[in-house]
Amino acid sequence: MTRTSDIRVAVSTVIFSLRRLASGDGAAVVLPLVKRTRDPFEGLWALPGGWLGTDENLDAAAARTLAETTGLAPSYLEQLYAFGAVDRSPSRVVSIVYWALVRPDEAEAAHAQHNVAWFDAASLPTLAFDHNQIVDYALWRLRNKVGYSRIAHGLLPAEFTLAELREVYEAILGKRLDPANFRRQVENSATLIPTDQFRTGSHRPARLYRYDHEVELADRGPLSR
Amino acid sequence: MTRTSDIRVAVSTVIFSLRRLASGDGAAVVLPLVKRTRDPFEGLWALPGGWLGTDENLDAAAARTLAETTGLAPSYLEQLYAFGAVDRSPSRVVSIVYWALVRPDEAEAAHAQHNVAWFDAASLPTLAFDHNQIVDYALWRLRNKVGYSRIAHGLLPAEFTLAELREVYEAILGKRLDPANFRRQVENSATLIPTDQFRTGSHRPARLYRYDHEVELADRGPLSR
Repeated sequence: MTRTSDIRVAVSTVIFSLRRLASGDGAAVVLPLVKRTRDPFEGLWALPGGWLGTDENLDAAAARTLAETTGLAPSYLEQLYAFGAVDRSPSRVVSIVYWALVRPDEAEAAHAQHNVAWFDAASLPTLAFDHNQIVDYALWRLRNKVGYSRIAHGLLPAEFTLAELREVYEAILGKRLDPANFRRQVENSATLIPTDQFRTGSHRPARLYRYDHEVELADRGPLSR
Repeated sequence: MTRTSDIRVAVSTVIFSLRRLASGDGAAVVLPLVKRTRDPFEGLWALPGGWLGTDENLDAAAARTLAETTGLAPSYLEQLYAFGAVDRSPSRVVSIVYWALVRPDEAEAAHAQHNVAWFDAASLPTLAFDHNQIVDYALWRLRNKVGYSRIAHGLLPAEFTLAELREVYEAILGKRLDPANFRRQVENSATLIPTDQFRTGSHRPARLYRYDHEVELADRGPLSR
């Protein structure tokens, strides 16, 4: 039963970014998809990805296929999950899925690419393969992680206001957060360092914060060392 | 470069359990290994596992190969990570690794199997393939998870004393914890329900606790529903 030569290995990537809503009020979580130009699922949108090369590591394959299809090159891709259901593709394919968060300015690279578009993660069309399920899983992980790690950092510039940080959390969690409670929780977490800089503009000046880089990222683990 | 038919897919499993120290003082994290009877790495110990069948899902393959090699059948296997470095095996193999915790009484099943032995996770010999690295990663995840989830539950009976719970944490974290601080943290976490039962024996009676099943396990996610 173990004719494993009939099983092929692919990599796919979920890239989350933020897009400000046209109303100017809040932001949405968005991700880039690639329109398929061949069977199976020709014409449907799919996650960026491709086949694993025999002479490349998994993370290298994820970075290569992401760059080839979208032009995006995040500094760090984290392995999300391996999807291998028998019926997920007409032929047997195990996909190792990676993910990353990119800031809105980094996301520009994908806008110029042919057959690539950014979609609101909350209202996707039917995607190729099991890619709707993969995005759902990535969103679930994102919502879980935002609670206990600095994952929102990946969507923010080096310095940011508490209102900007709250907007990231609101976009990921899909709900409004009370500003006073949010400020209290962040201050209690002791992971942010207030700077001497303020954001000025049409509103009253807001202090800029940065993440404390002495607090180790709990997400990466021994594999990335 | 994408001759993916040269890449094979395997599954492996890390099963953690506890073994009381001979001194009667504390416990150690242990895992079952299988002695290899063929090349590559003949004679070395390896994680339980085998090839993915073309007609079986990843989690089914993990459960099947674990049962075939060790006789163990945990109620739930969680996917840990996909290991696919080019040089991890003489031929190109991507291994999807699953893990589970089993209570000491469940671990008995593996003791009767030929070529299977339990090893102290803190003092392993050189294992086949990259299996030392895989165990290190699983231990890192275990130590991280024990802090924010009910993962220790998998190593405990339905009802347990706070001293027994603390012993699990001490074995996983590899350090002693202050009993009074530990009790306070557990009581503050509001995840345990005190029962009306007490453990009696040579010491003074100790109250038995159980986990609050209304608190959802954060680990499983949408894929297990």
